Amino acid sequence: MKKERFVLDTSVFVNPESKYKFGRKPTAAFLNFLKLAERSKKYSFYMPPSICAELMNFIDSSKIPAKLLSVVHRKAPKKYELTLPALFFYELVNDMRKRVDKGLRLAEKGIHQAKETEKTAEVIKRIRHDYRTALRTDTIDSKEDVDLILLAKELKATLVSVDNGAILWAHKLGIKCREAKELKSLLKNE
Amino acid sequence: MKKERFVLDTSVFVNPESKYKFGRKPTAAFLNFLKLAERSKKYSFYMPPSICAELMNFIDSSKIPAKLLSVVHRKAPKKYELTLPALFFYELVNDMRKRVDKGLRLAEKGIHQAKETEKTAEVIKRIRHDYRTALRTDTIDSKEDVDLILLAKELKATLVSVDNGAILWAHKLGIKCREAKELKSLLKNE
Repeated sequence: MKKERFVLDTSVFVNPESKYKFGRKPTAAFLNFLKLAERSKKYSFYMPPSICAELMNFIDSSKIPAKLLSVVHRKAPKKYELTLPALFFYELVNDMRKRVDKGLRLAEKGIHQAKETEKTAEVIKRIRHDYRTALRTDTIDSKEDVDLILLAKELKATLVSVDNGAILWAHKLGIKCREAKELKSLLKNE
Repeated sequence: MKKERFVLDTSVFVNPESKYKFGRKPTAAFLNFLKLAERSKKYSFYMPPSICAELMNFIDSSKIPAKLLSVVHRKAPKKYELTLPALFFYELVNDMRKRVDKGLRLAEKGIHQAKETEKTAEVIKRIRHDYRTALRTDTIDSKEDVDLILLAKELKATLVSVDNGAILWAHKLGIKCREAKELKSLLKNE
C-alpha cells in the first residue's frame, strides 16, 4: 500500500498554538513527533530543505539522533518544472495590491500620530505591528511558503501547518490540509 | 501570411514618455495610431478589455470612429486555462517581500521626520512618493498588468508598453517587447 504523504511546516513544532500538540518546546515537539513517525506504517513525511533549515534555528539538533531525523525526507519542489494556473497569479497580485495600499494608509496614520504625541517609539511599535499584520498575515510572502505549497502540490501530499497564509493559498490549489493535532491523532491511533 | 500580433498597453498612448510617438495628447495619439494600423497588412493589434477600459478614461471616445476602433481586437487572456512556471511565482513573491520590508522602513522614516518638522503635509507627500516608488515601480501590481503579459504569452504576440514593470516581467517569460517608437516606425515603413 502506498503511504499517505505529509508535508510539514516549521509552524507545527514552533508556533505557540501548536506547542500543546507534540510538545511545549520546539526540540521536544520535534523529537516527540519523530518517535511517533518512526513507527508509522501508513504515512510518510516530507520537508522542503528551506523549511528544514528554518526549523533547525529553533531546535537543539544535537538532541535529535540521525536515525530519527532520517524519518523526514528533505526534498525541494521541482520549481523549474512545475506550473501554476494563471488565475492563482491574478489572485495573488490583486491581494498584494490591496495590502500595499493599506500599508501606505498606515504610514500616513503613523506620521499624523507622531505629531500628536511625544512617544515616537510607541507610535513606531504600533505602526510596525499593524503594517506587518496588514501586509504579511494570511498571505504567502516567502520562498519557504512557496516551497511548502509547491511540494504538497507536486507530491499530492497533505500540508500540515498552522500558518493561515499557507493554508489559505494551498486550499486555492485544492491541496489537502490538516492541523497538527489531527496529525498527532492519526499517528497515535495507527 | 500570418500577421505579426501586437498587444498594446495604455501607456503607449498616455504616458508622457510616449506622447511624442503617436501624438501629444491621448486622443490624438490613439487616433493617429489607428489610422496607421488600419492600413497595415502585416500586423494585427490586441488589447485586453481591462486595458481598453483604462485607456478610454483618458480618451474622448466620441472622436474615435467605430470603423477605426474595430482595428484593435479586444480579447482577455484565457485566465482559467493558462499556466505559468512555478519559478515566476517564486520571483514575484521574493520581489514583493523585499518591497514590503522597504515600505515599513519608509513608514518609520516618515514618523521620525514628522517629529522634526512642522510641515506634516510635506512629510506625507514625500513618503507617499517614496512608498509608491518602492512598492510599485518595476513590478506587476494590477490585474491590467497581468492581463497584458498573459495575453501576449497566449497569442505569442509582441508587447508594446512603456511600463518598465510589465516589460521586466514579460521578459522573464520570454515575451518579445517593443517600444512605441519602434511600432510607429514599423507601421510607417510598411
